[in-house]
Formats: sequence, structure tokens, C-alpha cells
Amino acid sequence: MTTAGVDAVLLSVGHDLPYFTGYEAMPLERITMLVLAPTGIPTLVVPELEVPRVKADTAFQVRGWGEMEDSVGILVDLVGEAQTVAVGDQCWAGFVLELQQRLRGTFWQSATPLTLPMRMRKTADEVAALRATADSADRVAARLAMEPFAGREADLSVWIEAALREEGNEGLSFQAIVASGPNAASPHHHGGGRVMAAGDTVVCDFGGRMNGYCSDTTRTFIVGEPSPEAAAAHAVLLAAQQAAVAAVRPGVTAESIDRVAREIIDGAGYGQFFIHRTGHGIGLDVHEHPYIVEGNDLVLESGMAFSIEPGIYVSGEFGMRIEDIVVVTDEGVENLNQSPRDLISV
Amino acid sequence: MTTAGVDAVLLSVGHDLPYFTGYEAMPLERITMLVLAPTGIPTLVVPELEVPRVKADTAFQVRGWGEMEDSVGILVDLVGEAQTVAVGDQCWAGFVLELQQRLRGTFWQSATPLTLPMRMRKTADEVAALRATADSADRVAARLAMEPFAGREADLSVWIEAALREEGNEGLSFQAIVASGPNAASPHHHGGGRVMAAGDTVVCDFGGRMNGYCSDTTRTFIVGEPSPEAAAAHAVLLAAQQAAVAAVRPGVTAESIDRVAREIIDGAGYGQFFIHRTGHGIGLDVHEHPYIVEGNDLVLESGMAFSIEPGIYVSGEFGMRIEDIVVVTDEGVENLNQSPRDLISV
Repeated sequence: MTTAGVDAVLLSVGHDLPYFTGYEAMPLERITMLVLAPTGIPTLVVPELEVPRVKADTAFQVRGWGEMEDSVGILVDLVGEAQTVAVGDQCWAGFVLELQQRLRGTFWQSATPLTLPMRMRKTADEVAALRATADSADRVAARLAMEPFAGREADLSVWIEAALREEGNEGLSFQAIVASGPNAASPHHHGGGRVMAAGDTVVCDFGGRMNGYCSDTTRTFIVGEPSPEAAAAHAVLLAAQQAAVAAVRPGVTAESIDRVAREIIDGAGYGQFFIHRTGHGIGLDVHEHPYIVEGNDLVLESGMAFSIEPGIYVSGEFGMRIEDIVVVTDEGVENLNQSPRDLISV
Repeated sequence: MTTAGVDAVLLSVGHDLPYFTGYEAMPLERITMLVLAPTGIPTLVVPELEVPRVKADTAFQVRGWGEMEDSVGILVDLVGEAQTVAVGDQCWAGFVLELQQRLRGTFWQSATPLTLPMRMRKTADEVAALRATADSADRVAARLAMEPFAGREADLSVWIEAALREEGNEGLSFQAIVASGPNAASPHHHGGGRVMAAGDTVVCDFGGRMNGYCSDTTRTFIVGEPSPEAAAAHAVLLAAQQAAVAAVRPGVTAESIDRVAREIIDGAGYGQFFIHRTGHGIGLDVHEHPYIVEGNDLVLESGMAFSIEPGIYVSGEFGMRIEDIVVVTDEGVENLNQSPRDLISV
């Protein structure tokens, strides 16, 4: 904070708070905020009725606020004379706007430049947590390959979510994506009423949460036999994804990994169908830094964890994506996902 | 906007966006924002890869942004010369802070004063949606009363969540709360490893989401027979909850409803154990205006929907809560939840 010229840091909903305190606030209208102020020990300001959910910790004190109290006023008092205040990116705008009106003359900035260097490089314990939930997602992928892909997308999505819990996750990292046939050309399609049919490619993208850490893997299935077009596209996609994984090591840039995948897909004539970045960091947040995207010249370091997930999306026809989570190691890369990556016939 | 002196409105994650556009953005790091600017038709700025998820609508235009584009710059251009910009409360602070740095001299405020009068008064269609999901929650409550309360809290929580989907909800309005024995004294306890045992009060608080609208109901169960203390407390709680429901009608204040419940609980000597407000509004958000709390002198009007959920929490011993969703009608009140409210022996 001193080096960055920041006098106070405010961290709220999102995962900065559990990262630093072990406490995850519900994203609701009652304010929860960790205040790291110029003086005094860090204070977690939390609604009185949530206090029983906070585990005692000697690193910070808990200040419960009652339903009739001025919760923003408590923050104003704690921030005190701070000139520059950094706020977590996922804090609700409404709270920041109210603080700004009551602390005129204060300079406000994002806390991400402060939290990023810590959160982006995972410790051995964090990698172990990512590995455990990635393993569980691989087990779900293996079970999925033995399921009939015959009913509605939405029902398969619910099946995947239940399987993730059965495999040891305490929850989901996001609503499971099941996108079949032409729906698969929409990268973030959520399973709906469409009934899967012979010839469909089906993109299944899912992940759980174990000890707070997220998994996120994608496999593409084919109902029956693939068309020559789908088979050809998938072969290109797999080559691109594997080449990008193999390119990961300390000392190369994030964008260089994106380029490896993109050049293979471009070279095979599918460039216009690869409409998103190659990947995103993962940890307590399912999307976090580093982003594997052109323009990001961040140099990869040991401990960084992110997805490698190129896709090919042909509007109105089909879509496909292959996604693994990888961790940068001193030697190169560890691929946390190991379930089969070919176009699996179901 | 003209009356309020607001030149532009920005609505992002949270439920202002689906309320006004029918489109719900994923709460992720790629910015999605509806821009209501001084000139031109409203524009939904959305990541390119999400564009296929947006249903075409003549009321707004869609501006997809590619992975390499400056998404905040698009917003800056759309906001243009606006002097006063109102932002939805749940927008991520990081986006607002970046906009503020690039639009110096602009005055920023919450959009809630603009959106509140619309969102708080439900239309007949919205009430019908709330009624449908409330009915589904009542069916789950009825099924729950026939389940054994013998295993871990967390397993019963998963059971409730599956039942909510089976009863027609497309998702959950929040993670189901199952809080047993001393855990029940923590109002927002999430079901964990504790195994329920004879004599426990068990607070089950849950809701689904149907056509986007939320349900939220709480019933308190007893494993076996209640202690005289628990039975006495529950009788007081039920009287308070029913009196508060009966007091709802157009023309009275939100805080007056809180007082009705609180005076009965106070009068019976349990006042110190009722540690939260009496209720919260509900709609697309599971918590929204109006809040039923001392200090809120808002006058209730026909169409407002909110919870009535007093509780009694004795630290280290037991907890209990009864929650219904009610809607203010021209004649008085409609109670959307009708499952039995007594201390149900399981």
C-alpha cells in the first residue's frame, strides 16, 4: 500500500474478501467490507446477523452493524483521513458512489493493482485445491461420455451439476453449459429446451468449487457420427489446443499463448470462427487474471493458473471447444485436466 | 431522466438489466451495459461472444464488442457530453472507477431513485410470476415435512434445491439454508456437516426462480418433540408473523409493519433475540426495495411485494424463523405462501 501510494483499501463481495480473510460475503444489499486503513488493525465490517458466520481470526477485527446503523458511516469513520482509497473491482457501485459523496476530495482507484500480484501466483496449497476440483471435473467428463445425449439440453445440464456435487464439490463455479447443434455456436449458451439429436455436436462446459477453488473444463461430444466438416474442424481445434498447452512455460507472454492457438486455427482457414480469447485465469474466481489474450504482454511465472480453451463456432451450424486448466511450473506446464479430448461419440 | 436531471443511465449486472431489456448478463469481467444516453436509441453494449444470447428487441440496439476492443471507450463515446450519469447499484465498482477516470468532470449517482418506482410496484404479470414460484416453494415445504431430518444439513440443502427444480423452477434464488440446533441461531447459516438430532429446531429457508422471479420462504421444523422453551418461543413468533401479515395494506408505512412484529416479540420478552428487520422486497432480485425496517417511512402501495419473516435466535441453543411473501393489494394483502406455519414435527 505504501509503495503504491494507497492510504486505505476496501474489499467487499467477489473473491478478494475470501482470499484475504477466509470469509465470503453474500452479494446482497447489506454492506460487507474489509477496511485496511492507515492506522489500526484491519476491520471486517459485516451485518450483525452475519457475524455468527465469520470465523474468528486474529488478523482482523469484526465490526458488526445493526439493522438501524449507518453502515456507510462506519466505513467513512474507518477510512478517516485517507487521501487515496483503493476498492475491489467487484464491490457494488452503489456503495462506492455513496462513499464518494460522503468523502469528497478523496481519490478513488481500483484495488486490483495491489491484489493481482498475490492472487495471480498460486501457492502450492492453492494449486492442490485447483487440482482436486479439476480431477472431480474429469471424473464427471468420463461419466458424461457414458450418458445418452438424447433429452433436453437443460436436463443434461442439471445432471452435470448433480454429478459435480457427487464428485466432491461443495458447489458450482458457474451454471453448466450444454449447447447442442446450432446452439453450440453460441459460446455461453445455457442449456434450454432443445432436444439433442443425431449429428449434433454438443459443447459441455462445466466446473465445480472445492474449498472455494474453481474447476472449468470443456469437452465436445458428437451424437452418433460426426459430419466430415465437424471432424475436420475438431482435428484442427485439438491441434491448436494441444500446441497452446505445450507452449506454456515461465518467461513467455500471455498473448504468445493466444497466438499459438490462433495461428493454427487461422492457418487451417477457421480464423473467423474463433471469436474469443484463448483463456482466462482461475482460482477463487472462475475468471480472473491472467487473461490469455492478444494485447496482454504479461510474462508468465510459475504458479499462474489459467484455461486454454480455443473454440470454433459456425453460426447456424455447429460449435466446439476444448478446455483444460493449466498451471505454469518451474519446468513448464502441468495440465490439470486429463479426460479424453477427442470428439467423443455418444 | 429529465425530471431527475440525469443525462445518461448505465445499467449492468444485477436485475435492472433484465427488468428493462429481458437480458441477464453473466456477472463476469467482460462488461455488459445498457446505455440510455441523451440522444439516440438505448444501446446494449455486450461482449461479442454473448451476442447470440441476446434476443432481438426493437426497444434497444445491440453493440457487440470484440476481445481486442476498448469496451470502456465504447461507453465513453455513448455517454458523450452527459453531465450527470446514473449507474445501477450492482454494477462492478471497477467499471465505474475506470469510467470516472476517463470522464472527468461528470457527476455520478445511483440509478436507484430512477428505477425504484418502476421495479417496486409489480404489474399483474409480475405478481403472477411471484405467485407461481411461491406455489412451487410451498409444494417443496409440504414434501419437506415428510422427509426424515436425520442426515447432514448439507444433504438436506441439496435435496431442497433439487426439489425446487423438480417443482418447475429454472434455478435457485439463493443457496438453500438448512440450520439445525445451535446453528439455527445464525440466520444465514449454510448447511454444513452437522448431523441433525432429536430436539433440534431446523430452519429451512429456500426459494427458486421462475421466469426470472424469485420465491423465498422459511419454515422451522422440530426433530421429534419440542422443548417447552422452543414451543413457547414459536407460538410467539407465529403470532408476530401473522399479525404483521394482517397489518399490510396500502397507505401504511414499511416501518409500521416491522413494529407490529417487533412489539409482539418484545412484549413476550424475546426482543433481544429478534436481531434483523422484518422483511425485504422481492422480484427479479431476491432482496430489493421495499425493506420492512424501522426508519423506512415509505408508504406501501398496491403491487409492492415483500417478505414478512421475523425470527427468534438464542445463541448456542436454537433459532426459528417464519417467512411468507406478501403482495399489497387494493383491498389489503395477498399472502403468496400457504404451507403450514406451525413448528412441524419431523
